[in-house]
Amino acid sequence: MATVPNIRSADFDLAELRRLVAEMGGLAEAAIDDAVAALTHRDTESAAAIVKADQRIDALEAEVERRVVRLIGLRADQPDELREILAALKIAGVVERMGDYAKNIAKRVPLLVEARGIEPLAILPAMARATSEIVHAALDTFAARDAEAAVRVAQSDARVDDFYNSLFRALLTYMMENPHNITASAHLLFIAKNLERIGDHATNVAEMVYFAATGEQMGERTRGIDTLTDGN
Amino acid sequence: MATVPNIRSADFDLAELRRLVAEMGGLAEAAIDDAVAALTHRDTESAAAIVKADQRIDALEAEVERRVVRLIGLRADQPDELREILAALKIAGVVERMGDYAKNIAKRVPLLVEARGIEPLAILPAMARATSEIVHAALDTFAARDAEAAVRVAQSDARVDDFYNSLFRALLTYMMENPHNITASAHLLFIAKNLERIGDHATNVAEMVYFAATGEQMGERTRGIDTLTDGN
Repeated sequence: MATVPNIRSADFDLAELRRLVAEMGGLAEAAIDDAVAALTHRDTESAAAIVKADQRIDALEAEVERRVVRLIGLRADQPDELREILAALKIAGVVERMGDYAKNIAKRVPLLVEARGIEPLAILPAMARATSEIVHAALDTFAARDAEAAVRVAQSDARVDDFYNSLFRALLTYMMENPHNITASAHLLFIAKNLERIGDHATNVAEMVYFAATGEQMGERTRGIDTLTDGN
Repeated sequence: MATVPNIRSADFDLAELRRLVAEMGGLAEAAIDDAVAALTHRDTESAAAIVKADQRIDALEAEVERRVVRLIGLRADQPDELREILAALKIAGVVERMGDYAKNIAKRVPLLVEARGIEPLAILPAMARATSEIVHAALDTFAARDAEAAVRVAQSDARVDDFYNSLFRALLTYMMENPHNITASAHLLFIAKNLERIGDHATNVAEMVYFAATGEQMGERTRGIDTLTDGN
């Protein structure tokens, strides 16, 4: 008798868990785009709103944790579902970090209000778009439990790394030529690094999806070569 | 009959899980110290060894995941132990990231072999010591399941942030005065940021220990104020 409602509620909870992680992902994607838009327009008000909104992502992560602990009690004997439940837990943690990186970009906006005519800045919106795309793709692989798509996502992070590397070089050249703009340029270096790291976290999500779907770790080879920008 | 060996093996597994996480932590601490030592001595060989050794941390994380899935089957009905098991899973993930940051510092050593006379570098070893200390303290709170100590650790991260902030300012001033050393200085900025982020991850570990021990999230207030350097 008791197991029937249990199973029904577990199915419901698992769907809810996916929905919560998807909601976190949507908020993180929006935060990335908004943070770079706030930077581009030197919009400190919207930047402050982004910092505040990150609390919602943190609250959703806590909610995911509560549900995971409850779900495990109902699914402990089903390894495949357990792997997915734990993947949800870890992915929620990674998405929470993505939100922090977006928040960090937003926090630098007030420090950059005076920064004008920094040409490398022009690359940031395209880099932010590429970053949101990989975040979106990574969360889609979780929703679809698609291990092959996860491998493609992990490999596509190289695009964000390429943006980062050219922005890094452009900013260093700019700093040498404009020592008076070094503080602003240093903040832009970190902003670029934050986007690069968000892309790397999207790769981590893809790896977690791969493990949840296959029970195997995604190999270094599958994942692509280890570069200075990866994961660090 | 069957439950007796189950419980015994679960106790053994839980102890093993703690041991594995402690081993990961020890490797991460060593990697941090070694990476900064390699940097200080421009020792590219030891830097390469640190990069290679990070694979061991990654392998331990995968092992922790395998055991967690197995343990959950035995402890699903014991919420307190489940929380600790899941904390172990998440802490393993965080320590794996710490290892990546140390690896990233090591990867920058070859790029800094030529860098000479960058005074701000002198702050790094002390900052690295402070960082390893908080990492060690955070992992101790997990081993001891000590929620109060976890709160103290979360608050002590401010020390690493202070090091970071003074190093950040010192490096920017140095860059303005020595535009020819801007590339090296930028790498040092990221190295300082990596140490700062390791300290932040130690705070995350303390928060996870707190949640595992109390079932409550460590509050913003408990944790200390949100600064530009925290968590990002």
